[in-house]
Amino acid sequence: METISIVDSKKYVDKKVKIGVWLTNKRSSGKIAFLQLRDGTAYFQGVVVKSDVSEETFALAKEVKQEESMYVIGTIHEDARSHFGYEIEIEDIEPVGASKDYPISPKDHGTDFLMDHRHLWLRSKRQFAIIKIRSELIRATYAFFHKEGFVKFDAPILTGSAPEGTTELFHTEYFDKDAYLSQSGQLYEEAGAMAYGKVFSFGPTFRAEKSKTRRHLIEFWMIEPEMAFTHQEESLEIQEKYIAYLVQSVLDNCQYELKLLGRDPKVLQRYTKLPYPRISYDEAIELLQKSGDFPDVKWGKDFGSPEETYLAEHFNKPVFVLNYPKAIKPFYMKPHPTRKDVVICADLLAPEGYGEIIGGSERATDVAYLEKQIEKAGLDKADYQWYLDLRRYGSVPHSGFGLGLERAVTWITGEEHIREAIPFPRLLNRIYP
Amino acid sequence: METISIVDSKKYVDKKVKIGVWLTNKRSSGKIAFLQLRDGTAYFQGVVVKSDVSEETFALAKEVKQEESMYVIGTIHEDARSHFGYEIEIEDIEPVGASKDYPISPKDHGTDFLMDHRHLWLRSKRQFAIIKIRSELIRATYAFFHKEGFVKFDAPILTGSAPEGTTELFHTEYFDKDAYLSQSGQLYEEAGAMAYGKVFSFGPTFRAEKSKTRRHLIEFWMIEPEMAFTHQEESLEIQEKYIAYLVQSVLDNCQYELKLLGRDPKVLQRYTKLPYPRISYDEAIELLQKSGDFPDVKWGKDFGSPEETYLAEHFNKPVFVLNYPKAIKPFYMKPHPTRKDVVICADLLAPEGYGEIIGGSERATDVAYLEKQIEKAGLDKADYQWYLDLRRYGSVPHSGFGLGLERAVTWITGEEHIREAIPFPRLLNRIYP
Ligand SMILES: [Mg+2]
Ligand SMILES: [Mg+2]
Repeated sequence: METISIVDSKKYVDKKVKIGVWLTNKRSSGKIAFLQLRDGTAYFQGVVVKSDVSEETFALAKEVKQEESMYVIGTIHEDARSHFGYEIEIEDIEPVGASKDYPISPKDHGTDFLMDHRHLWLRSKRQFAIIKIRSELIRATYAFFHKEGFVKFDAPILTGSAPEGTTELFHTEYFDKDAYLSQSGQLYEEAGAMAYGKVFSFGPTFRAEKSKTRRHLIEFWMIEPEMAFTHQEESLEIQEKYIAYLVQSVLDNCQYELKLLGRDPKVLQRYTKLPYPRISYDEAIELLQKSGDFPDVKWGKDFGSPEETYLAEHFNKPVFVLNYPKAIKPFYMKPHPTRKDVVICADLLAPEGYGEIIGGSERATDVAYLEKQIEKAGLDKADYQWYLDLRRYGSVPHSGFGLGLERAVTWITGEEHIREAIPFPRLLNRIYP
Repeated sequence: METISIVDSKKYVDKKVKIGVWLTNKRSSGKIAFLQLRDGTAYFQGVVVKSDVSEETFALAKEVKQEESMYVIGTIHEDARSHFGYEIEIEDIEPVGASKDYPISPKDHGTDFLMDHRHLWLRSKRQFAIIKIRSELIRATYAFFHKEGFVKFDAPILTGSAPEGTTELFHTEYFDKDAYLSQSGQLYEEAGAMAYGKVFSFGPTFRAEKSKTRRHLIEFWMIEPEMAFTHQEESLEIQEKYIAYLVQSVLDNCQYELKLLGRDPKVLQRYTKLPYPRISYDEAIELLQKSGDFPDVKWGKDFGSPEETYLAEHFNKPVFVLNYPKAIKPFYMKPHPTRKDVVICADLLAPEGYGEIIGGSERATDVAYLEKQIEKAGLDKADYQWYLDLRRYGSVPHSGFGLGLERAVTWITGEEHIREAIPFPRLLNRIYP
């Protein structure tokens, strides 16, 4: 008899197996007990028929508590009525770990209570499905960038300077120096691109932002690819290919999780069709103005969540908005060749109200231009000497972008709040557990 | 004519191509110029024969400076004399980015100078080979744990408590609270294992340790798998399978990089043969005492670098040392069933003087035992309530381990100092660039 995982049930139909599980729920009568079981790979039902098992086993089945752990021994059968498609007819139960008064009952709890018990709440079906899809997006990210010839190039988390000003940075003492937690690895990725051609970072980033929205985390994971000898148009092609690959990977490998979430695969299929529409910032402003819904919108202002939602809904697909005003974008973006007021950049806006999931640009290559921009932004030139070296010694056209992992998870799973997209969210009022 | 990467040369023999490159070195006579070129995918030679090109092209070839960037257009040929195996016969050169007085010349520079110029130093051959092998180990890690059914489960970096005491932790202010940078995601991975069965984290960790050795970084990446319903013996099997997979992946995919490093693949092949020897801590002490080289060694002391080196050299392979004294190991390790003085754990020691690369254990499952250990260690019980919940609600036997990525990179590449194993090392005296 083999010890298996629930997810492997399909290979063991009508076979006797042993599985280590936890109980999520149960109902029973005098003659039969239905145990809802999970093992971290899937959820399914165990059936214990009184007349087929020992008295002791049936007593165990009737007494087992929510989240108690045990081994169940029995035979796998098909079960067409469940999402999962299989169940186990239990012959024997070996109790493993008790569970008394599990704090999360099937009744409704408030968000704070659930987040205080995040270490247990993660065992629930919806959280399971989201974290599994997150894991699939991570796997697919490595697979995609490997296939495309990128080198994983880790940017440091602790940096001695504050690239975009210190207001939203976490500070720490690094022995006798000041240090900050990285908000982005991009500048380092540019050094990587000059050394290894195509690179990407994928790691945690930190923003000490005092905002409480359903789109913001204090600690979140970013994927930041950077490509040498690459102009913005080629970068846009990689970006949309990457997003379509992510969505397709979830469609290919997470049908069960999508079912658990009630997320319609047909909606996701639409996002695998390329290319995504591209509109200029100018056109976006026009669209918003024409709609009549945004009386305050005018050229030069950044988009908020309502504007981003409108634009992506208009196309019913992810949409690239190109070439934003220079004044609202970071210093390192490449100036437009014929227009002084915009830079060569694009945000990718996700539909269904999820807003910006990618921000990217071609990078400025001229030392004198960059020095002026750094000065204008009120940054300390000394901190950027190494960065300017990348332009002093064999500068090349290069482009890159950043994708927020949790934004992508939230969008693809159709989840409402970004706090569910990471195992232990860090929020304005939350750093426990 | 296609624009290709150097690494793809083998598919374009006798074909005309265009490649974006940087110059690493050159020599020339009146009739021919040999340009050493790199593009981040490989290094090869460009040959410019005066009689075959325009006067302007030959002049460009003679004048091009170290780390100047350009497009070269020409025909790929085999070149059996080089590591890479191909070269390009150049017809035309399009200059891209100038380079004046590149600071790293082929002459010797001191370590501090090179680390101050790490953003440029990364372009060098040895650094290229190490970072590429690092990237391959990362890729192989995701491939391995995916194949084995693990879920990527990211532990938080910012934590509100200090799991192993605050002495070696970086502190920051988290709005109105105190926070610390994670030294290990393990406790969180245990919550993950109870929810998803087999999980792993792979992210940066931080140790504010005032030590300056060739084995320590302040910021380093750790892989921390954790498995529910898993005893230590099965964990050891996964560990050695994983290490052998990493080494095999480098052998399969990084022959060019190993050549650049002068690292003998035969040495690495030895490390793919399983199982690795297992000895108890008791036996290790005996071996060390018998050797006569360690007069001070006695039962109860932790091993230092010389002891670890001796033990691994003795077997000429990675070796597991099992069941260390309880007094020198963390509170969460499972006590031995029949001996009060040791815990169920193992360190994997790498040969060739690289020391511990994995530390792991079976975890204690009993709440009362853990509470006592937490108290004994002088830790605050309140910080561990969520962790103890994992034992209160369906505790199961579980085991896990941690691998330091940079230790593995250093060992597999045969590099002397761990600072080369990460793009931008954070060391006691270094947080720039
Ligand atoms: Mg925006
Ligand atoms: Mg040790």
